[in-house]
Amino acid sequence: MGEAAVHAVAVSTRIIPAMDLRGGIDLGGTKIQAVVVDPAHEVLGEERRATPTGGGPADVAAAMAEALAAAAGAAGIATGDLIGVGVGSPGEIDVVQGTVTQARNLPGWRASYALGPELATLVGAPVALGNDVNVATHAEAELGAGSEFGSMLGVFWGTGVGGGIVLDDALWAGRGAGGELGHVVVRIGGRRCPCGRRGCLEAYAGRAAMEARARKLVEEGRETKLFQLMDKHGRDRLTSGIWSRALERDDDVAREIVTEAVEALGAGVASAVNLLDVEAVIVGGGLGLRLGEPYREHIEAAMRPHLFSDDDPPAVRLAALGDLGGAIGAALLALPDRAADG
Amino acid sequence: MGEAAVHAVAVSTRIIPAMDLRGGIDLGGTKIQAVVVDPAHEVLGEERRATPTGGGPADVAAAMAEALAAAAGAAGIATGDLIGVGVGSPGEIDVVQGTVTQARNLPGWRASYALGPELATLVGAPVALGNDVNVATHAEAELGAGSEFGSMLGVFWGTGVGGGIVLDDALWAGRGAGGELGHVVVRIGGRRCPCGRRGCLEAYAGRAAMEARARKLVEEGRETKLFQLMDKHGRDRLTSGIWSRALERDDDVAREIVTEAVEALGAGVASAVNLLDVEAVIVGGGLGLRLGEPYREHIEAAMRPHLFSDDDPPAVRLAALGDLGGAIGAALLALPDRAADG
Repeated sequence: MGEAAVHAVAVSTRIIPAMDLRGGIDLGGTKIQAVVVDPAHEVLGEERRATPTGGGPADVAAAMAEALAAAAGAAGIATGDLIGVGVGSPGEIDVVQGTVTQARNLPGWRASYALGPELATLVGAPVALGNDVNVATHAEAELGAGSEFGSMLGVFWGTGVGGGIVLDDALWAGRGAGGELGHVVVRIGGRRCPCGRRGCLEAYAGRAAMEARARKLVEEGRETKLFQLMDKHGRDRLTSGIWSRALERDDDVAREIVTEAVEALGAGVASAVNLLDVEAVIVGGGLGLRLGEPYREHIEAAMRPHLFSDDDPPAVRLAALGDLGGAIGAALLALPDRAADG
Repeated sequence: MGEAAVHAVAVSTRIIPAMDLRGGIDLGGTKIQAVVVDPAHEVLGEERRATPTGGGPADVAAAMAEALAAAAGAAGIATGDLIGVGVGSPGEIDVVQGTVTQARNLPGWRASYALGPELATLVGAPVALGNDVNVATHAEAELGAGSEFGSMLGVFWGTGVGGGIVLDDALWAGRGAGGELGHVVVRIGGRRCPCGRRGCLEAYAGRAAMEARARKLVEEGRETKLFQLMDKHGRDRLTSGIWSRALERDDDVAREIVTEAVEALGAGVASAVNLLDVEAVIVGGGLGLRLGEPYREHIEAAMRPHLFSDDDPPAVRLAALGDLGGAIGAALLALPDRAADG
């Protein structure tokens, strides 16, 4: 009887999660973050892996499956027990075909790759794809700092500057390519953006552009601790943590570049607010989360001179779900009653 | 029997319009445009008056009632026969109270004025108010150049630069103050805008700012035919017609200022498209309509370098309802089954 009871319990702990648990994977240019969540969106297991820097899409898919398997293991299940897996991906996404095209920050990923079907085979569960920024915005809107607002702008300040728009409690992505806050023009004829255009917000505030600017200032003879800190911490690029440390040490170059970034964010976000008059702006992304509250205030202050309705500004909040927001939002794509988001 | 028949006809021609005809008034800083339309939105009568430059809101309301009476007369009815009258107004509008506040381009109109109730008394018909730009956008979206699109951006290039946003076939104005395309920032730290801020689109492309720029260039010793043309045509400001004539005569200053305006419009409109990914951009407003097709093309070309999804640009069209669009749109506010628009 003892053995039978134990067996019954074991079956029941397997069957209940299999009915209800979902996986979520945030696929980024530098990291893959996987979570397993319960119906209340609580994280039962999580795993973070570096995104492969070589190989191709199949290697990335394999790394994603491994990360999800580790997260599922931490939750006491196998990936095949999940009712579904959602993925927030960069690039151009076809939610019906499950393909991702032109994911430029991922290795060898120019052509179309059937990430959805391939990953579904690897993990043994259905997979739904969504745009990474929309997925993170959706998570903040439903479960995070935006949950009390019907309209909001998500600002993801990281390698680039992503934007997500929620209007009337629903994501707005236009014909599928909306939310490109990073490519709002803040200075006609201004600095060259990594996208090749001039004067985009991201040309001043994207971490990739900020690093390029720092290297240029060093070439011009300016002194900075940024690259020493990078070497000291064993990094090959200026991460959010490196920027944060340099600011703490009052590094002139870091302060100048971050000040320009905040000024550009203030103008670009205020422009979006002047157009959309949303109730709230939610600031997330690697740099946004790392620099935190003081910089949320700096961004709010930088918006003020440009806000047309300056007597009724939107609330400006930090993203509440932190680093896991993208993966938790991806798991929302796997809710049983939910159509996939573009 | 002859007399009875005539009487019956007279009654019937009075009763049918009384069931169906609507009034629309576009209240602008320089003109009041009134129309009377039938159920198919055909204009049966119209009248244009100069907006009073002195006095106060009551004088403006009286001029609006006179203009509408003339339009109704042309349609063979009295204003009291209209089933309703819609008004597109500048300023801050309370659609429930029918009040307009802070209409800065109108004489003595800082405080709140109950335009809706006062005008309703003067014309003997119910009055609904709406924001002038939203009303004109709605007209183009339902009846004009945007009717085939579910999402569009209306660009009203005139004294200022107004913007109207239609998403999922409905106006989007956020908390009531959205669509301020003219105050999207196109150059951080740039030219002073009539609104007092710096670098707004309107600081480069609004006709008021363009005139101020022309006066400044003249002060600096530049030569232009703009002000001679203004005097010759008996104007006290640089109207759209004056700008058009100066361009036809290859006036350097006019060309330089209009080129800057188009460049700013390209950047500002592209920024809005990058955010919203709308299907279409509809260009109207006094300058937009007067400069017409060649400048629609110039604006489209000026957008191109800033469009993030440049392989899938929105359609760019001229507003189809012309000068009457605002008034025809206002009349939409008086449709029986329609809630008033903010």
